[in-house]
Amino acid sequence: MNIRQKIDSDALGEAVAVLSQRFGDRVSTAQAVREQHGHTTTYHKNLPPDAVVFAQSTEEVADIVRICASRNVPVIPFGAGSSLEGQLNAPFGGVSIDLSQMNQILAVNAEDLDCVVQAGVTRVELNEYLRDTGLFFPIDPGANASIGGMASTRASGTNAVRYGTMREVVLSVTAVMADGQIVRTARRAKKSSAGYDLTRLLVGSEGTLGIMTEITLKLFGIPEVIAAGICAFETLEGACNATIMAIQVGIPVARIELLDEVMVRASNVYSKLTLKETPTLFLEFHGSEASVKEQSDMFREIADDCGGSNFDWATRPEDRTKLWTARHDAYWAVVQMAPGKQGIATDVCVPISRLAECVTETKVDIDASGLIGPIVGHVGDGNFHASLMVDPDDEEEMRKANGILDRLVERALAMDGTCTGEHGIGQGKIKYLVDEHGPGVEIMKTIKTALDPGNILNPGKIFAP
Amino acid sequence: MNIRQKIDSDALGEAVAVLSQRFGDRVSTAQAVREQHGHTTTYHKNLPPDAVVFAQSTEEVADIVRICASRNVPVIPFGAGSSLEGQLNAPFGGVSIDLSQMNQILAVNAEDLDCVVQAGVTRVELNEYLRDTGLFFPIDPGANASIGGMASTRASGTNAVRYGTMREVVLSVTAVMADGQIVRTARRAKKSSAGYDLTRLLVGSEGTLGIMTEITLKLFGIPEVIAAGICAFETLEGACNATIMAIQVGIPVARIELLDEVMVRASNVYSKLTLKETPTLFLEFHGSEASVKEQSDMFREIADDCGGSNFDWATRPEDRTKLWTARHDAYWAVVQMAPGKQGIATDVCVPISRLAECVTETKVDIDASGLIGPIVGHVGDGNFHASLMVDPDDEEEMRKANGILDRLVERALAMDGTCTGEHGIGQGKIKYLVDEHGPGVEIMKTIKTALDPGNILNPGKIFAP
Repeated sequence: MNIRQKIDSDALGEAVAVLSQRFGDRVSTAQAVREQHGHTTTYHKNLPPDAVVFAQSTEEVADIVRICASRNVPVIPFGAGSSLEGQLNAPFGGVSIDLSQMNQILAVNAEDLDCVVQAGVTRVELNEYLRDTGLFFPIDPGANASIGGMASTRASGTNAVRYGTMREVVLSVTAVMADGQIVRTARRAKKSSAGYDLTRLLVGSEGTLGIMTEITLKLFGIPEVIAAGICAFETLEGACNATIMAIQVGIPVARIELLDEVMVRASNVYSKLTLKETPTLFLEFHGSEASVKEQSDMFREIADDCGGSNFDWATRPEDRTKLWTARHDAYWAVVQMAPGKQGIATDVCVPISRLAECVTETKVDIDASGLIGPIVGHVGDGNFHASLMVDPDDEEEMRKANGILDRLVERALAMDGTCTGEHGIGQGKIKYLVDEHGPGVEIMKTIKTALDPGNILNPGKIFAP
Repeated sequence: MNIRQKIDSDALGEAVAVLSQRFGDRVSTAQAVREQHGHTTTYHKNLPPDAVVFAQSTEEVADIVRICASRNVPVIPFGAGSSLEGQLNAPFGGVSIDLSQMNQILAVNAEDLDCVVQAGVTRVELNEYLRDTGLFFPIDPGANASIGGMASTRASGTNAVRYGTMREVVLSVTAVMADGQIVRTARRAKKSSAGYDLTRLLVGSEGTLGIMTEITLKLFGIPEVIAAGICAFETLEGACNATIMAIQVGIPVARIELLDEVMVRASNVYSKLTLKETPTLFLEFHGSEASVKEQSDMFREIADDCGGSNFDWATRPEDRTKLWTARHDAYWAVVQMAPGKQGIATDVCVPISRLAECVTETKVDIDASGLIGPIVGHVGDGNFHASLMVDPDDEEEMRKANGILDRLVERALAMDGTCTGEHGIGQGKIKYLVDEHGPGVEIMKTIKTALDPGNILNPGKIFAP
């Protein structure tokens, strides 16, 4: 792979001048705008791009890429700014391509249960647009991320246990490649055996192989009945075991989310809830009246066996919304709990049979460190996060946090799991990708070099520069 | 991409000598063995490899690839010999690597609903092995294909409408790359955002990027209740419309298969059934007692509206088996109907809303040609096959058949569909891949060249040589 250096300032100046001529005041080099586009949410240092261009069409993105590529200037795609592993940073400088003005919903094919959207549409915007169609788009990372960003990191969220991740729900993408060529990776057929799966090669590639500008997504019918419930457990292990059994017996639970007692405390404060501060599962069942009853009855039996309390039901839509808003705000609840600190967002995912073991060992490790690090997770998928709160300038805290993170990833890999279930590699997990994939990383680099020989697409992400 | 020529006979002789030294009588150059390994099932001409090696481990496959690669000799992976587009042929000669002796089931992780198998295990062998676990593997192309072959062509079959295709159910693969390196593409976590999706790059690559030797698969719990039914319709359009509505209202049907009246007639003869010879749907519902009743009641209402007969139920397992065996034997039923002819297996897949239109227009086109070409399909996915029976030496028949095929693919692409839903490109659909993917094919070729610079892995497949 081409080793990237800081870009030549003449080339950069020329690229920005040509971009300004072409796009006028949709090009910005203002400090605040640049810094906002290197936004990292977590402890990663802000490394702003040299300029930001607000694109409004696929053709414009292609023009920007060509203008930058011919001058060897890096480009970094930007959606909503909610990534967690430094995906938006510009360690070698370059131009951030802001896609937030590409927020058109181009088609809703209700009869085919799919839609086509521009990359800058956010998940909340899409669901608001769909409101009257009887359909919804289930993938919901905590933040109101853009669909393009979600595809880039192969995002998932609370509904993935039932509806899949971006890997499963993206039918096709339109992308601008490193040479400015525009490619549509597939058509709208539900399945295809026609050649290499370019769709899934681009999904999860974090802007390093191409810039996705339009995405075709599967949609789902809004279930007849939605029932949400809260179940408090005596122990973390009990909550995990109930999850494991629910998955193993095949309850088609739509959401099954774990909050440890620290997380429940943080959510009580931040989201004004009054939950009992013990390990707790938030659940949701989707289906017909009969099916939802069947699912919840089955889960109740399991919970009883695992030291779970009676369900506390949230049947009114506004109560459900409150519950899930609290869950989605978990990260901000933790941030408020630790003023002045920043988060290290861990993200391992293990085979479900190892969940209880992995969560409880991690909890012991965090408790021993004295750091604040609540655990929250999409446990039905075997995926959980410990948000380690640190002062990045405090060496001792960073040493402790990095130790926990190293051991957590090592633990997950030893259980045949992954270092990241949904956040991606970005800058933060480059070394863990090597631990996880070994020689596979060289294959990934070979593909990267073949498709982006100048290494201009989001350099310094996924792979060491 | 490196343009392949017929291989140098000295290099070939040397490779075969080294292989024979290493593998003894597991290397064969016998005419019958070679011809069997260029088996094409359909009208594609048999192009046998120069030698066949029966491999027994991943390390052996790696050795074979290294021996051949260093002499620029092509290698063609072989599983069960049931592919339909000439995927196993050796147009440039070379060595067929037969994986059928790699038929070990390496692990069944029942608690994680997954298993690890060698590539030569067939789908029937896997399900027989699983019989007492309460789990099953749903993907079922007509033939008793090998899991490796099914992964290679991104196969699906009758259950895909509910359980997905090989794209969805393969969690990870171990593959031997063009340089003999062994790579495992992922671990067993249900989801991951760690780097490029090498699993799904290899799935569907038809042995052109790597040779899959071990595959980790998702498994599913055997449903509490399985109910199969047959529903005869007055018209083909009625049967298609019933399918469309069933999918659109979200009935989680496990199987919904169309047979046109010609296909029903062929199956009556071949499989000794006594079905009414009109367009017919074979259905299967999976779930709890209540859920199966709910699903079948919903479908009954839809069928009534679309000119469907009363259901004919097959509740006894042996009756269900008879039904689905007949469905899986459809191709052989057609072959028997047209003695001396060979099949052209078409395989388009369209968005569900266009299904009725696509099927009925195709039927009109086939009827006008005078060829035998029954229609059968996994219609819940929008995927159907017209098996065009021809004498490959009869120019007029081939002209007619190719015309139908060209128009069928054109029709499907115009409806935002694909030229192949599950059979793959092989040698037979190379030109349609270009029609479908345009500039995407160049990206695929760039990846192929990067990962297999010598073009030794199954050359002449997917892309023109």
